[in-house]
Amino acid sequence: MSGSTFGHLFRVTNFGESHGPAIGCVIDGCPPGMALSEADIQPDLDRRRPGTSRHVTQRQESDQVQILSGVFEGLTTGTPIALLIPNTDARSKDYANLLDTFRPGHADYAYWRKYGLRDPRGGGRASARLTAPMVAAGAVAKKWLQAQHGIGFLAWMAQLGDIEIPFTDAGQIGLNPFFAPDAAVVPRLEAAMDELRKAGDSVGAKIVCRATHVPPGLGEPLFDKLDADIAHAMMGINAVKGVEIGDGFGVVAQRGSVHGDELMPRGFASNHAGGTLGGISSGQDLVVTLAIKPTSSIRLPRASIDRANQPTTVETHGRHDPCVGIRAAPIAEAMLALVVMDHALRHRAQNADVSLPVPSIPGRIA
Amino acid sequence: MSGSTFGHLFRVTNFGESHGPAIGCVIDGCPPGMALSEADIQPDLDRRRPGTSRHVTQRQESDQVQILSGVFEGLTTGTPIALLIPNTDARSKDYANLLDTFRPGHADYAYWRKYGLRDPRGGGRASARLTAPMVAAGAVAKKWLQAQHGIGFLAWMAQLGDIEIPFTDAGQIGLNPFFAPDAAVVPRLEAAMDELRKAGDSVGAKIVCRATHVPPGLGEPLFDKLDADIAHAMMGINAVKGVEIGDGFGVVAQRGSVHGDELMPRGFASNHAGGTLGGISSGQDLVVTLAIKPTSSIRLPRASIDRANQPTTVETHGRHDPCVGIRAAPIAEAMLALVVMDHALRHRAQNADVSLPVPSIPGRIA
Amino acid sequence: MSGSTFGHLFRVTNFGESHGPAIGCVIDGCPPGMALSEADIQPDLDRRRPGTSRHVTQRQESDQVQILSGVFEGLTTGTPIALLIPNTDARSKDYANLLDTFRPGHADYAYWRKYGLRDPRGGGRASARLTAPMVAAGAVAKKWLQAQHGIGFLAWMAQLGDIEIPFTDAGQIGLNPFFAPDAAVVPRLEAAMDELRKAGDSVGAKIVCRATHVPPGLGEPLFDKLDADIAHAMMGINAVKGVEIGDGFGVVAQRGSVHGDELMPRGFASNHAGGTLGGISSGQDLVVTLAIKPTSSIRLPRASIDRANQPTTVETHGRHDPCVGIRAAPIAEAMLALVVMDHALRHRAQNADVSLPVPSIPGRIA
Amino acid sequence: MSGSTFGHLFRVTNFGESHGPAIGCVIDGCPPGMALSEADIQPDLDRRRPGTSRHVTQRQESDQVQILSGVFEGLTTGTPIALLIPNTDARSKDYANLLDTFRPGHADYAYWRKYGLRDPRGGGRASARLTAPMVAAGAVAKKWLQAQHGIGFLAWMAQLGDIEIPFTDAGQIGLNPFFAPDAAVVPRLEAAMDELRKAGDSVGAKIVCRATHVPPGLGEPLFDKLDADIAHAMMGINAVKGVEIGDGFGVVAQRGSVHGDELMPRGFASNHAGGTLGGISSGQDLVVTLAIKPTSSIRLPRASIDRANQPTTVETHGRHDPCVGIRAAPIAEAMLALVVMDHALRHRAQNADVSLPVPSIPGRIA
Repeated sequence: MSGSTFGHLFRVTNFGESHGPAIGCVIDGCPPGMALSEADIQPDLDRRRPGTSRHVTQRQESDQVQILSGVFEGLTTGTPIALLIPNTDARSKDYANLLDTFRPGHADYAYWRKYGLRDPRGGGRASARLTAPMVAAGAVAKKWLQAQHGIGFLAWMAQLGDIEIPFTDAGQIGLNPFFAPDAAVVPRLEAAMDELRKAGDSVGAKIVCRATHVPPGLGEPLFDKLDADIAHAMMGINAVKGVEIGDGFGVVAQRGSVHGDELMPRGFASNHAGGTLGGISSGQDLVVTLAIKPTSSIRLPRASIDRANQPTTVETHGRHDPCVGIRAAPIAEAMLALVVMDHALRHRAQNADVSLPVPSIPGRIA
Repeated sequence: MSGSTFGHLFRVTNFGESHGPAIGCVIDGCPPGMALSEADIQPDLDRRRPGTSRHVTQRQESDQVQILSGVFEGLTTGTPIALLIPNTDARSKDYANLLDTFRPGHADYAYWRKYGLRDPRGGGRASARLTAPMVAAGAVAKKWLQAQHGIGFLAWMAQLGDIEIPFTDAGQIGLNPFFAPDAAVVPRLEAAMDELRKAGDSVGAKIVCRATHVPPGLGEPLFDKLDADIAHAMMGINAVKGVEIGDGFGVVAQRGSVHGDELMPRGFASNHAGGTLGGISSGQDLVVTLAIKPTSSIRLPRASIDRANQPTTVETHGRHDPCVGIRAAPIAEAMLALVVMDHALRHRAQNADVSLPVPSIPGRIA
Repeated sequence: MSGSTFGHLFRVTNFGESHGPAIGCVIDGCPPGMALSEADIQPDLDRRRPGTSRHVTQRQESDQVQILSGVFEGLTTGTPIALLIPNTDARSKDYANLLDTFRPGHADYAYWRKYGLRDPRGGGRASARLTAPMVAAGAVAKKWLQAQHGIGFLAWMAQLGDIEIPFTDAGQIGLNPFFAPDAAVVPRLEAAMDELRKAGDSVGAKIVCRATHVPPGLGEPLFDKLDADIAHAMMGINAVKGVEIGDGFGVVAQRGSVHGDELMPRGFASNHAGGTLGGISSGQDLVVTLAIKPTSSIRLPRASIDRANQPTTVETHGRHDPCVGIRAAPIAEAMLALVVMDHALRHRAQNADVSLPVPSIPGRIA
Repeated sequence: MSGSTFGHLFRVTNFGESHGPAIGCVIDGCPPGMALSEADIQPDLDRRRPGTSRHVTQRQESDQVQILSGVFEGLTTGTPIALLIPNTDARSKDYANLLDTFRPGHADYAYWRKYGLRDPRGGGRASARLTAPMVAAGAVAKKWLQAQHGIGFLAWMAQLGDIEIPFTDAGQIGLNPFFAPDAAVVPRLEAAMDELRKAGDSVGAKIVCRATHVPPGLGEPLFDKLDADIAHAMMGINAVKGVEIGDGFGVVAQRGSVHGDELMPRGFASNHAGGTLGGISSGQDLVVTLAIKPTSSIRLPRASIDRANQPTTVETHGRHDPCVGIRAAPIAEAMLALVVMDHALRHRAQNADVSLPVPSIPGRIA
């Protein structure tokens, strides 16, 4: 039972491989009547696309999205929105070697054991290229959530390898290739990446993603809690190995008298929770942190086996990101938007009639 | 769209509230022909149940499970297995105060905003009591996975507050009330809990859960990756705020040449991955770490609001766990078992015909 | 992947066997804040329960339903509603013979081939007794649909064997054991059933079910059309072999100029469609017709095989309905209500924001 | 919650509109390792495509399918198979009139009330053109089912208007534009259609679809019975108003002693059941009958309303099928194949370990 559909009511089905003719997705369940064109989607794709700095893969893809269905005279019709992104810079003439061996840390071996065969060209289905349709679908969700609820999404890099990145200025995030919210740290990041590239190695990163103005009430206990579905979405992004909501692993040593965010008529006094209580949004900002592992495709030689279980050595050349975390910020935003969108629809399906005599308190004290 | 069903093919639907007549679940999709009786389920429930030491809630529940359906002459029939656990020690005569105010850090406020009303008795639907049916369902999954694949599950406490617990002896886990794999640390844990109880406060914990002998191939990219579904399951457990697979947040500062586990004919040389590659099980042990927040129900006074958005102060008396992490080990095992079980069925649905000429390599070098 | 859950947003999970300790269901996704008690459910169960006339099985079951969860102080809370119906008159001491042979036309053989074993007591999982929890869940849906939209459900018998039953008076339906909307035909039905019982045989029936005041817009093309989901629900009822919407098989010989219901400002001029256009409710009454086959459990001897594929003869004694169609009317209403309920929630999840400048036209010209 | 995905494990997501740039689908969950190319799919598309005789719409579409993903070196990889069919003969320059009024019997009105807007060009999403991707997906399922189980599918026209078509020769079905299994009736069908076209009217039809060599055990009670899912699939095909399994509505007047198919070691003695017992395949042939209503788009004037609820008259010109039943046979086969395929995977997910000491009996006595 292949799992290429995300979401229950705002459903996104992703297809394609790194070196096939095209990648894309079908969005089923988008509310009708929303203005939508390629111009709403392209900016996020441009933030994610490869080849934009020397620190990421040099594959040149313009990632031009086409809307094939679901829009009539500029408005969504409520029927499936098919999005197509042609692959234009696939170079896969020589993959015989890739097919026969398995990169340590890569999906190669697991795909082969699962399906008995795999498309090895550019990582095939396991390629981070498949995050492009996620970003495209997320852009549609973002537009609706902004229009309906004023919800905004913002992700940034908080650490690259052992370099911690302070959050000093959100305005900087879009101005450097690292999505770093601090201008001063950028030269250090560039130097580290240059060194890494020379070494033929890769490194991990930490990404933080935040959603603001999320209304209270989103999330479906007992199992489809909002934070649980966020964890599902985030851990499913290529290379993610850890997910935190709010204080995350910091809660282990906390006391309850510190952790529990006090409620006041003017708003929540703090946000240790990261936006969810009992798996339901509280009205506080959603704050999610991701750990992204170092890329598996590196030039340094590693011990491995081939398809006959014989020992071999693998060195990976070609075009690869030495830190996939660098382009992960738009992906994290998109996946968070897909979760919130799905839950916005799920919530109103059951609870559209609920009304309370007092408004919800602000997410934080102004 | 309430989310009280877990799993796609091995589907568990959970019902009940802390102080209702009974809690329970329905398991749909269990393979037929497996020997099953209450005796297969009760031991895990006994490991989780309250009142077994002075460090947990003093509510007395025997948590005796009854199988209502799906078993004939001692064998599963393939039809739904309904499990019922009566509530016997509910004390809820006075909940008017609970109904009107919201404990900081608790689900109270979010449930109210979502549904417009809530059952406040003992935490209602948000109570950790609802993990009992999870544990019961997990026991059924564990039995099948053990019989079919030899898969074993083991969880333990790795940290309580600021006390780190070394893994010195798995045999100790069942011998102390903390699920601590180290005998020497137990007196310190007891002292810390006694102090905490006196202080009227609560504290967090870290739990590690491991599954051994997991076959390669489980997991359904692009979205229902094994690690993504584990993250979903784990973040959905009451009070969990962080989930790691393998090295987790340790990967941020790692290099690819360190992180990627080398493959050898005798097995994987290491297990930084924690058992998944590309979201598919590799044959390595699954290793999952959880951060559990401090309980919200504490005696210390906290600022909050009431249902009219007026300021108030909340002190929570009654029977509560000062560290819900203490009883979390069997819950983590159960949820991990449910994920692996669901994926074992999902995998064979699509890939039952796959056969490869060489066996999978061992999960680790012996 | 066992299929014991019905619905996507208003989800009903059914469990139990004919002679187990209890049967029941869990309703997940019910909107909160609706007044609900056993008294809302029991009347429909009483309409369906066995032993109420000499024309149905003489098994004595009071079918007293208990609400185990999801209701607090008389209101639904939005959490799962577990409904339990104990089995009280199970007599299954001697089922060895049943276990070894297969009744022609019965599920016996198919269950055995599928699962490798089966609970043979009273038909086990395949018993029509499992329609009781469907009726109970349907009663919850009916209450919400009546309160929110004024939707009403009514089913009746339109034919028993070769006796056609005219629709002369809806008021008669509740006054005779056949759910016949005509008083004059009842003596003929009684005589036919008496003859049948003596003959040790069984007979089929035709049931019509109608829903009134259904708002336009329900139904989710391309695959989950309202009529498609009705067909799924109805064909899934025990013994159903045919389903029609509106004119049904009558459309084969119709011309388009006759079939298409003309629209007028005062309402639709006719209702050949049976309430759906393009798989979406039109505002016309839903009209569904079911063909119910004759019961398989008959006294007359039939040729069959045993579990060793050896020829044998089967005669079925014990308590059985000679026409399961007699008790089918409340079941049809319940399943139709579950479909409409699920679609009411599905529709508003996606389209809650849609508003049109003119109201929908009436379902029919007054 | 838009319903454009069909199936649970073999999942097909359909997208597109009649006059958009392309239509297509994504198949998720196809088993890996099966040889697949466009040549496996095109023949069924050619059987369904328009413009092949004077009796169907004259729109010229070659319906050339492209595989965009999921196949590597000619074999399925287990990842999503995206199929694209460009629209090449859309003529939609003048649809202003269509947009403002509603054809009696057509989806126009219902789509508008549901979504608040609709794509009116060529019927938009409600067009029978969207059955092309169903046929394409069905071809993939057919190939696997034939290879794995020897299952074959065949559908034919059994009645057109009031002309009953005897089943005299399956070999004739592919030799006439009506899918009629009788050569002698074809001139009458042609004359009837010519008359109808002149009259500017349309007519209904009856289609029978059969699957042979279906193994016993497919179907998932209590709700996802094989026949229930077949009814869902078939009632969801454009214009279908009735579905029968086996004897269908003929069972109403049958006695149990006639209806129940006797089992013999050599096979079933008859097939009144139409291939399912208790909602599970019995090993008998699946036999499904569909009633297809007359097309709503006719030249004859009909009374209707406009978007302001004002009375108007509608005449539909342009290219339309006067009997959509004529091209329905390949669609029925495809949808039946999708149901059987999904259930083949669902069955083995749960029951792959079931083995019985004796083989199943043949579907019929040879």
